[in-house]
Amino acid sequence: MSSPNRKSPESLQDRLDQVMHLLHMPGQSPAEEDELSPAEELAREQRNQELQRKLEELHPADVAFILESLPLEERLAVWQRVKSAQDGEILLEVSDAVRETLIADMDSQEIIAAANNLDADELADLAPDLPRDVVRELMDTLDAQQRERLKSALSYDDDQVGALMDFDMVTIRDDVTLEVVSRYLRRFEMLPDHTDKLFVVDYDGFLKGVLPVKKLLVSAPDELVADVMSEDPVIFAPEDDAGEAVQAFERYDLVSAPVVDVRGQLKGRLTIDEMLDYIREENEADVLSAAGLREEEDIFASVWKSVRNRWAWLAVNLCTALIASRVIGLFEYSIEQLVALAALMPIVAGIGGNSGNQTITMIVRGVATGQVQVAHARRLIRKEASVALINGSFWGVVLAGIAYLLYANVPLSIVLMTAMVLNMLLAAFMGVVIPLVRMRLGRDPALGSSVLITAITDSGGFFIFLGLATLFLL
Amino acid sequence: MSSPNRKSPESLQDRLDQVMHLLHMPGQSPAEEDELSPAEELAREQRNQELQRKLEELHPADVAFILESLPLEERLAVWQRVKSAQDGEILLEVSDAVRETLIADMDSQEIIAAANNLDADELADLAPDLPRDVVRELMDTLDAQQRERLKSALSYDDDQVGALMDFDMVTIRDDVTLEVVSRYLRRFEMLPDHTDKLFVVDYDGFLKGVLPVKKLLVSAPDELVADVMSEDPVIFAPEDDAGEAVQAFERYDLVSAPVVDVRGQLKGRLTIDEMLDYIREENEADVLSAAGLREEEDIFASVWKSVRNRWAWLAVNLCTALIASRVIGLFEYSIEQLVALAALMPIVAGIGGNSGNQTITMIVRGVATGQVQVAHARRLIRKEASVALINGSFWGVVLAGIAYLLYANVPLSIVLMTAMVLNMLLAAFMGVVIPLVRMRLGRDPALGSSVLITAITDSGGFFIFLGLATLFLL
Repeated sequence: MSSPNRKSPESLQDRLDQVMHLLHMPGQSPAEEDELSPAEELAREQRNQELQRKLEELHPADVAFILESLPLEERLAVWQRVKSAQDGEILLEVSDAVRETLIADMDSQEIIAAANNLDADELADLAPDLPRDVVRELMDTLDAQQRERLKSALSYDDDQVGALMDFDMVTIRDDVTLEVVSRYLRRFEMLPDHTDKLFVVDYDGFLKGVLPVKKLLVSAPDELVADVMSEDPVIFAPEDDAGEAVQAFERYDLVSAPVVDVRGQLKGRLTIDEMLDYIREENEADVLSAAGLREEEDIFASVWKSVRNRWAWLAVNLCTALIASRVIGLFEYSIEQLVALAALMPIVAGIGGNSGNQTITMIVRGVATGQVQVAHARRLIRKEASVALINGSFWGVVLAGIAYLLYANVPLSIVLMTAMVLNMLLAAFMGVVIPLVRMRLGRDPALGSSVLITAITDSGGFFIFLGLATLFLL
Repeated sequence: MSSPNRKSPESLQDRLDQVMHLLHMPGQSPAEEDELSPAEELAREQRNQELQRKLEELHPADVAFILESLPLEERLAVWQRVKSAQDGEILLEVSDAVRETLIADMDSQEIIAAANNLDADELADLAPDLPRDVVRELMDTLDAQQRERLKSALSYDDDQVGALMDFDMVTIRDDVTLEVVSRYLRRFEMLPDHTDKLFVVDYDGFLKGVLPVKKLLVSAPDELVADVMSEDPVIFAPEDDAGEAVQAFERYDLVSAPVVDVRGQLKGRLTIDEMLDYIREENEADVLSAAGLREEEDIFASVWKSVRNRWAWLAVNLCTALIASRVIGLFEYSIEQLVALAALMPIVAGIGGNSGNQTITMIVRGVATGQVQVAHARRLIRKEASVALINGSFWGVVLAGIAYLLYANVPLSIVLMTAMVLNMLLAAFMGVVIPLVRMRLGRDPALGSSVLITAITDSGGFFIFLGLATLFLL
């Protein structure tokens, strides 16, 4: 045997480079198509075939990566050369933004052909991105069971277990021997991916337990399923929150788990690959939403799409900036008298924002993992205030020193130091209170937390510093 | 059979509440211990036993969650009541910060007893947090193979595959029938977790392929391993980057994968649960480091520890704020002449920072997923600049209108609008260039990217706005 292939990301990068190379040879650009000589036409045809061959060798996930890494024009050029049998798999793998561009390039017949190779749960993932009439046409091509499953999957929210589960379950009865189970399994051509356990159900489809494959392999063939199965598996309901299912998968090191309805009837199963995808998407959404972006924008999105994606967040920030600006406006007279205030005020606001972001990040994270309760509020405020007091005093003294060197004004330095400490205390207090209040109100404590705390410490910092200066320096 | 247990996070919260309740009954606090009557003593003993019983019923991951959710004093009170057989598992599950507090509470003998139940790869995870002499003592209790494995695991970086792999491999030969394999497996009491494939090796331990358990189950018993095994599995080297391994697990939906050295000899295996933990830790580290925090701080850390964790980042921010302050200082004369400048300048800086963060977030994410190449730089700058121009012009006009309402000064409004557009163009340019240059230099494009872009747009915004104002308004 030859040495096993490395399918590491480096070699994936190589493959991307190869595809780019084949795409970018002269004559490959559509604009030049008309001007080709017969010889060039032939060369182009050969490259085309080589590209097609390369693409066929690749795992759908790798083709998806390549499509995501290409600007729109090249992306569609590659997409047209992908064998249609792979289309469905690839559409499942690409990001939402890229999927949209690919589907926009297909006609109804192509979409339906691509969808034909997919299971009901996979169809449910695609359906929201497909044109309405295509979905209706698709429904007609499905058998009753598949249609039922597709409808069920579509009836749940994206972040509910019901939307993530699949229907590839191997079910067995509990009154047979393991020998019988083994013979039953051998009648399958292929077991579903991530089959680490078989689901034991009664004649009405109610879950009685699970038989881990590990156990099936080490147990004597004449034992009964009922004696070997585990009767206390981790189970989920279709209505469960997907984020909580993810935590359970992590906590109990699951590979798959049954999904049952309230009465205990087996409805589907969750698998670790769906959980992994969910984590990845959640994390991306978090990172993007912290900067006021949504998942719909991919790196090569059109300018217009990007503008629409970003303007709303800029508007929110302009509002908070305007408020801060009006706070400064209140003290224009003081600034006219002592212009150093204008130069020093962003420092007070900035350090408060920074310190507040540290606090709110800790608290939001604690709330997300369930470690912070509203009951802890007083203890946490006391702690965060102490940290702010120590850090604020230390850096306040350092900064007061620098301000003295610059302006040789002792009262100004003292006001600066005091304002820094007070703004950091404000930041500590609000950094604890904001997420806890939001949790109490049933809101997401993370959403826009950084904007909110920064808005408070900006306006608050300007107000405290300029207010103190007006009181004591003028 | 009773209906299967729901081990969902809600019921985990209930268990936490139960433990808290048992801990917080009167007489449970150490301070009151001396003043107990014999009857109280008895009641206390009973609660103690109930607490211990509750803890024994729990999965180690659940005990870890409870420990993480308790302030230090209560945490140690619970920890002392955990059965020592579970100690090792629990230490593996808790976060680094909490682990430190637990280990500080144990003496050498307790640590060694806890470690005795662990495998070499698990020991390697704990070792960096243990006192030096305890690690040395532990080494002595291990047999030669375990010691070798522990040393090997410790020789790799935290983010290398070698540090994440375990040694629980089931290996088989390729010249036997599946029947023989099945009989061999039945001699195991238990297969390792996440055994979705068996590793096929030759007599010298070189990997020849893998036999997926799925395939073993559906194939005829008289087939040879060599005919059924897959010869082209995804494999890793111990030196590989863990992040890339995670991507491969996601891409190819792996549950486990062999780790081989350069010569092809099987060294260990990677499993999906380690990948999941790695993703979680990476994401937490990202979220925390964005706010200048490190993983070592848990929510109930001491004030002093939190101060040390946070001061360095505040110092960095103070430096950038000082630079921005000095830029303003250059224009003190202009501000004295037209004090409205002081009120409007934070808006220009703020919107630039916001817009720059949007750009740099998109680019950093594209670099991380491998979709952005240095070759794309010009195209991306052109696109981001266009977005900035459109958003900047639109909001610039809106803001110029508001400024006119406030100050009735047309030239001032025009300067404000121009400064906004220019600062957003600067933000777009730097937002693309910074991560790409860092990638070129082999640095992490994400690290401190938000601070860097904000520092540039703050100082740049002040300079552009006050500079234009000085040139055209005075």
